[in-house]
Amino acid sequence: MQNYVVDTQISPEGRLEILSKAEVARLLDTSQGGLYSMFRNCSLAVLNCGSPLDDGKELLERYKSFEISIIQRERGIKLDIKSAPANAFVDGKMIKGIHEHLFAVLRDVVFVNDEIMDNPNVDLSSSEAVTDAVFHILRNAGVLKPMTNPNLVVCWGGHSISREEYDYTKKVGYELGLRALDICTGCGPGAMKGPMKGAAIAHSKQRIANGRYLGLTEPGIIAAESPNPIVNDLVIMPDIEKRLEAFVRTGHGIVVFPGGAGTAEEILYILGILLHPDNATLPFPLIFTGPESAREYFTQIDQFIGLTLGPQAQQRYKIIIDDPAQVAQEMLAGIKEVREFRKSRSDAYYFNWLLKIDQEFQRPFRPTHENMRNLRLDKNQETHQLAANLRRAFSGVVAGNVKDQGIRAIEEHGVFEIRGDRSIMEPMDALLASFVAQHRMKLPGKQYNPCYRIVK
Amino acid sequence: MQNYVVDTQISPEGRLEILSKAEVARLLDTSQGGLYSMFRNCSLAVLNCGSPLDDGKELLERYKSFEISIIQRERGIKLDIKSAPANAFVDGKMIKGIHEHLFAVLRDVVFVNDEIMDNPNVDLSSSEAVTDAVFHILRNAGVLKPMTNPNLVVCWGGHSISREEYDYTKKVGYELGLRALDICTGCGPGAMKGPMKGAAIAHSKQRIANGRYLGLTEPGIIAAESPNPIVNDLVIMPDIEKRLEAFVRTGHGIVVFPGGAGTAEEILYILGILLHPDNATLPFPLIFTGPESAREYFTQIDQFIGLTLGPQAQQRYKIIIDDPAQVAQEMLAGIKEVREFRKSRSDAYYFNWLLKIDQEFQRPFRPTHENMRNLRLDKNQETHQLAANLRRAFSGVVAGNVKDQGIRAIEEHGVFEIRGDRSIMEPMDALLASFVAQHRMKLPGKQYNPCYRIVK
Amino acid sequence: MQNYVVDTQISPEGRLEILSKAEVARLLDTSQGGLYSMFRNCSLAVLNCGSPLDDGKELLERYKSFEISIIQRERGIKLDIKSAPANAFVDGKMIKGIHEHLFAVLRDVVFVNDEIMDNPNVDLSSSEAVTDAVFHILRNAGVLKPMTNPNLVVCWGGHSISREEYDYTKKVGYELGLRALDICTGCGPGAMKGPMKGAAIAHSKQRIANGRYLGLTEPGIIAAESPNPIVNDLVIMPDIEKRLEAFVRTGHGIVVFPGGAGTAEEILYILGILLHPDNATLPFPLIFTGPESAREYFTQIDQFIGLTLGPQAQQRYKIIIDDPAQVAQEMLAGIKEVREFRKSRSDAYYFNWLLKIDQEFQRPFRPTHENMRNLRLDKNQETHQLAANLRRAFSGVVAGNVKDQGIRAIEEHGVFEIRGDRSIMEPMDALLASFVAQHRMKLPGKQYNPCYRIVK
Amino acid sequence: MQNYVVDTQISPEGRLEILSKAEVARLLDTSQGGLYSMFRNCSLAVLNCGSPLDDGKELLERYKSFEISIIQRERGIKLDIKSAPANAFVDGKMIKGIHEHLFAVLRDVVFVNDEIMDNPNVDLSSSEAVTDAVFHILRNAGVLKPMTNPNLVVCWGGHSISREEYDYTKKVGYELGLRALDICTGCGPGAMKGPMKGAAIAHSKQRIANGRYLGLTEPGIIAAESPNPIVNDLVIMPDIEKRLEAFVRTGHGIVVFPGGAGTAEEILYILGILLHPDNATLPFPLIFTGPESAREYFTQIDQFIGLTLGPQAQQRYKIIIDDPAQVAQEMLAGIKEVREFRKSRSDAYYFNWLLKIDQEFQRPFRPTHENMRNLRLDKNQETHQLAANLRRAFSGVVAGNVKDQGIRAIEEHGVFEIRGDRSIMEPMDALLASFVAQHRMKLPGKQYNPCYRIVK
Repeated sequence: MQNYVVDTQISPEGRLEILSKAEVARLLDTSQGGLYSMFRNCSLAVLNCGSPLDDGKELLERYKSFEISIIQRERGIKLDIKSAPANAFVDGKMIKGIHEHLFAVLRDVVFVNDEIMDNPNVDLSSSEAVTDAVFHILRNAGVLKPMTNPNLVVCWGGHSISREEYDYTKKVGYELGLRALDICTGCGPGAMKGPMKGAAIAHSKQRIANGRYLGLTEPGIIAAESPNPIVNDLVIMPDIEKRLEAFVRTGHGIVVFPGGAGTAEEILYILGILLHPDNATLPFPLIFTGPESAREYFTQIDQFIGLTLGPQAQQRYKIIIDDPAQVAQEMLAGIKEVREFRKSRSDAYYFNWLLKIDQEFQRPFRPTHENMRNLRLDKNQETHQLAANLRRAFSGVVAGNVKDQGIRAIEEHGVFEIRGDRSIMEPMDALLASFVAQHRMKLPGKQYNPCYRIVK
Repeated sequence: MQNYVVDTQISPEGRLEILSKAEVARLLDTSQGGLYSMFRNCSLAVLNCGSPLDDGKELLERYKSFEISIIQRERGIKLDIKSAPANAFVDGKMIKGIHEHLFAVLRDVVFVNDEIMDNPNVDLSSSEAVTDAVFHILRNAGVLKPMTNPNLVVCWGGHSISREEYDYTKKVGYELGLRALDICTGCGPGAMKGPMKGAAIAHSKQRIANGRYLGLTEPGIIAAESPNPIVNDLVIMPDIEKRLEAFVRTGHGIVVFPGGAGTAEEILYILGILLHPDNATLPFPLIFTGPESAREYFTQIDQFIGLTLGPQAQQRYKIIIDDPAQVAQEMLAGIKEVREFRKSRSDAYYFNWLLKIDQEFQRPFRPTHENMRNLRLDKNQETHQLAANLRRAFSGVVAGNVKDQGIRAIEEHGVFEIRGDRSIMEPMDALLASFVAQHRMKLPGKQYNPCYRIVK
Repeated sequence: MQNYVVDTQISPEGRLEILSKAEVARLLDTSQGGLYSMFRNCSLAVLNCGSPLDDGKELLERYKSFEISIIQRERGIKLDIKSAPANAFVDGKMIKGIHEHLFAVLRDVVFVNDEIMDNPNVDLSSSEAVTDAVFHILRNAGVLKPMTNPNLVVCWGGHSISREEYDYTKKVGYELGLRALDICTGCGPGAMKGPMKGAAIAHSKQRIANGRYLGLTEPGIIAAESPNPIVNDLVIMPDIEKRLEAFVRTGHGIVVFPGGAGTAEEILYILGILLHPDNATLPFPLIFTGPESAREYFTQIDQFIGLTLGPQAQQRYKIIIDDPAQVAQEMLAGIKEVREFRKSRSDAYYFNWLLKIDQEFQRPFRPTHENMRNLRLDKNQETHQLAANLRRAFSGVVAGNVKDQGIRAIEEHGVFEIRGDRSIMEPMDALLASFVAQHRMKLPGKQYNPCYRIVK
Repeated sequence: MQNYVVDTQISPEGRLEILSKAEVARLLDTSQGGLYSMFRNCSLAVLNCGSPLDDGKELLERYKSFEISIIQRERGIKLDIKSAPANAFVDGKMIKGIHEHLFAVLRDVVFVNDEIMDNPNVDLSSSEAVTDAVFHILRNAGVLKPMTNPNLVVCWGGHSISREEYDYTKKVGYELGLRALDICTGCGPGAMKGPMKGAAIAHSKQRIANGRYLGLTEPGIIAAESPNPIVNDLVIMPDIEKRLEAFVRTGHGIVVFPGGAGTAEEILYILGILLHPDNATLPFPLIFTGPESAREYFTQIDQFIGLTLGPQAQQRYKIIIDDPAQVAQEMLAGIKEVREFRKSRSDAYYFNWLLKIDQEFQRPFRPTHENMRNLRLDKNQETHQLAANLRRAFSGVVAGNVKDQGIRAIEEHGVFEIRGDRSIMEPMDALLASFVAQHRMKLPGKQYNPCYRIVK
């Protein structure tokens, strides 16, 4: 198959429109240095939206000749793009939503990197500093809106789900949208796209012209989960952990749809945080839901949580099977509580400052073979600590499944080894096996080769 | 099956908000008189949107206890609604789009009736006067926008089409929307809903916040083709003929999807007009399109037109099979010509004053058994006259299929008889037979009982 | 002095943009018929704004060659203007505000005349019908805004006041504007312009971008009181009485500044209405105010009211001397009461339906010599009847002073005779004499020749 | 006279609404440290607007008990204000424009200081870096608008001018506003307020709702030239030189009205820049204008420039006496050239990057007795250098006249000594003497005591 490609030049809108000469010079420098490959790959992922590819490595190989660079103009900058995937264009003109997403990449990958990640004045060693960085990135992206009532629902779930499950996510999005709720997901297809599509239709029926479809992604996942252009606020967070923190600090509630290892990772993340003693009284609506066919999936997740984190953890979520309207009603009720709580504490509606996130959940986890092998998976630790480590284990499995670096590491060194207490390893093995059996590890039609081995 | 119902009261927005005491009094009077049943039935159709019913008679029987009335307040009016279909509501609150549609019904059925149809000063006997009435109804509904470039594409086609054809209409709507074109349809499901859904997604990707989804309906058809709430401008024209005139005077081009007898009626209508000598040089993009599976359908339509109206008629349209992007590109190019033409004649962009519509196409046709029997279907008349009579024949078939009155007439007096020249009756018989064979006369799953008999 | 003039053609914006062919034809007809001279003279007055002329006759003579006519275009209409006063233009382009005012003239003088005044279906013989006509004219002009809290303050007073008084009206307007109140006046210079200017500055300081400056005028007065372009909603009512009714039904309170006979007329009008038994409990803030130098003026007005209408009338207003902030505070408090009252009766905020206006106050009064002579000015009638007749007497004096027709009548037949009970004629004579002594009858610098004679 | 005062707390709008915890902490720190007195004094100046005081020292003494501080809230910050001048409030509520100005002070004095002036990473030693700092401050204040055609006219001139001259500045502002030009001034009364008032009225007549009234001030001058609340974009630049650079880089042309020493300083500044060889071909409309009574003033300025900087300098400006419309027409024509020039060089419209500003004009000049004495005022230097030094001399005189620090220095050490070549000192002496004679050094009614001595 031949891949049609297009060359073009585009100008920024919004905050990258007015740059000083010094900023332009710095952007040119930065974008050509070590950051170039990340900038290029994220841009390619954005341009590739709508294609059925979910494999970052394949994508990069298919568009080898793709190039993107910044051109300096007296008045500001332009992006010069060569050999871009043709489906980002209509009659030679780039789709407006993709145009915006490309500049979101430039803003977040290059600019933010320069201001935050590479800034010697910014010390990310404390928990507060990490939260501050997350806040700055989100504010710089313009997604923190004051004077707005809480209404942002985070939707998590797999990008590789069945048609039935996908249609269900649309229905839930539709019911949320009918109730004037906005949607935030991790971008990409499946459970990330369905709720936005459903909500978009519902918003148009309710004549809500300013519905928000916030996408939060990160450089390692964007290639596999290319943002749909419906996403009208896209933020590329620097790493998985900051992306997860962005979800839980901007969202006012979370709906979890069926998924695979990535979804399990997200569930463990939010439960680990909610189990922290400081968050005991903090309201946070959390609903697991799917159509009848997903009942089994959530039963197994629920069992796994019961066996590893205990009944206290099970009390922080509700499981609703096959009832989109009820999901939306519960979420609306939960968000009302969130609003009352924040009001009483005079906390901001647009950023959950009061949520305690332990550094365990903020420190980036690099899924090397060694790190995977050394994860502490036993019950001689506080529950939220155990949740943190379980989260890392699943994070590694996701990397091995879909991320460019992870796939290469597995190709080179073989599968990851995960070891720990039998009382934890057995449920984990069962859970992962059920994911494979339910074809939740890869897009349908492909054979799944596990990237891990459970050592009991 | 039990039908859940809801009682409520709602207040108008927009032009019905500020009424004089005299106007309120007149509305009360009018809505309680002979017009009440039309007002009630159209309102019920609007409230029933989203339900799979396409049979006006069944609808009326199902919601027998439904009632709607105007209440007078010192400050204006309210609508008092009893036993409305529950699916028009979310948690007891009416969906905003449906709320708007209800007041469009009030505006068009009651108010306009009072001002235009029942106004002794308004004489509808001349062609100009009918066009003027159409203009007034559309302007009163706020759908004529000055200062806007031509971009409104009318989409015609069946409300009872296959999933494949439906998906195709979505794709065409999507490609039109990507090119910033707006959509106008006859409301209802199938080919009337698909293009709007597709365009809505495309508009959101192109960040077009003010996309228009104009629905034109009439009291006789609204029950079978209940407007989808995506429709953000709804107009209920007084009868079929004014509705058809509204389509061709506000739209800047027409796409025809597969359908049944109603679609054939629409095709004959537009061809009859375009064949009028005065319109010979007037640009009017007209495209027949469908997926591969619809090739046969359009081949037969094309043959029928060739055999009855001749090759000149065949030159006014293009048939494009299975290529949504090409449809959109051709339409865009055609509308550019329309723009140049209107500019050069300094005609309005929002209303096609220059299009000549013969009174033959304006005079309401009542499909009684007698009128059907007396239709003149021979070649001893001008081509556009023949087109007018063929249009009426198909109009009668539609009435017999789906309209409340038509169904009752058939139940009472048996099927319509249609007679004429063999050279016309044979192609007509063949065409109608192919519609039946292709299941294009009714929603799938139902047995079709023909409401007509061709007398050759 | 030579009068520079400009020729131009202008296109409408807003509701005259989309006209049917029939409407265009009717406009052409009407504007060329008997209405032409009214249409032309009002247009000239609008174009003459900013000039120091306050004499309609002089104005017409100065611009004898001025012409205005409607041109038909396929797409709508244009106005063709010849020899217009040059100060309506900037570098050859008409000032936008004046452009709007010209189309307000077209809308109100030609269009409304056609729809209401000349409409055989409209019968203005009942009080309700007159109120309905006032409502229609105002709604057609787009000045009735639902969903807005009461905040419209009518300012009355002379157009020929001293610099000190003018500055005071600006200060009052400023204090009203600081409190987010909008202004409605009769257009023209002096007390009609000052409050708008002051409010405009205050609105800009309070960042109120949508401040309203509503001007209500009528064909007989517009030449002498040409609307300032700050007026962003201009309505030309058909006659004095409908203009007065428009003031009291749209305004939520009235401030009266010093003036001459016209101001006295307005005061008698509003008092006559408020004294009607049906309005006894209706809140209506009414404040007479001016700088220290105007104390004498209001003392005499107050005495005149006391002697003719009695102490009950004196209780409906407050006199505040030299305290702009207090005026604004009292008005704000009064309007809050109006809001509570309307809310409790569920009356509209944008139109005072509950105010009873007797037909005495609605019937146009033609100030002929005979009518003036026959006015019944004695105490053998209800107080509000007496107020109505006193109002007419002052109305005649205004006509004789500044209106084209009145001036011509006086030139021809000599001064008006006003006769009645001594107990009324003496205070009246004193009041009018004090107006002359205070130079309140004409623009300063001109000698005043009385147009009336009091016969005691 | 007693000074009424008010206590209140206010919340920010706009960019200070969403602060991170770290930013709030830093603001608290900074505002309480050495910056507190600058923050407090600027805030007081803003609150004092509308008062006739033009003497910073007097102001501070009058409101000794005034206090302002930042309060931390979970959700952001508030300002706590004690003993503020009562005329900033309406019925106890702060005027919106002043509210905005207070947060402009916080933003520019505290926040910008922290980010730019005190940032170890920011090195202001190069000319480019200073320009960059100016750019950042303006962008952070939101005053750089892309996608807008050049239309910003800077108006300079005295704050202590005669009523006649003030009325003239209003007329010029009015003519500029009629031509859709926006106004930028240095804030304060007189020639800084008049053009804004005039333009505001003209904008309202032309229905321009988004007219800009940009005020650029600096901590040393704000007390004497308190910003009028019409100013809808206020920026407090860190020092005189950055303020002047902000004027010439954001404005598209300059109108100079009569003034005193400050106006002379501004004239010398812009001429010194335009005389730089790099700017020889750069278009920059510069007009000196005033009513007939100001003819003498500009004759003397023109002579002084001729004698000191030569005829080349005289060619960069036009003098127009008593013709507001011509001023506006020339300015419009000049700005059209600016637009063409920037377009041809693809320079930004919102910031004049191409204008060369020598470091001589950027380096802050501290007018100590020593620095004033050591100014090099001879002709053995390039003309633009001489202009720079003359600019400093006048800057010192302004400080001695109205700035708190300057006044204190003169009180302590006696008047400044200014020395140089006779060929420069004599015209300078003559010019300053004429300023004194024309009462251009102080508000009228006060005796002027010179703060300098010319040593020839």
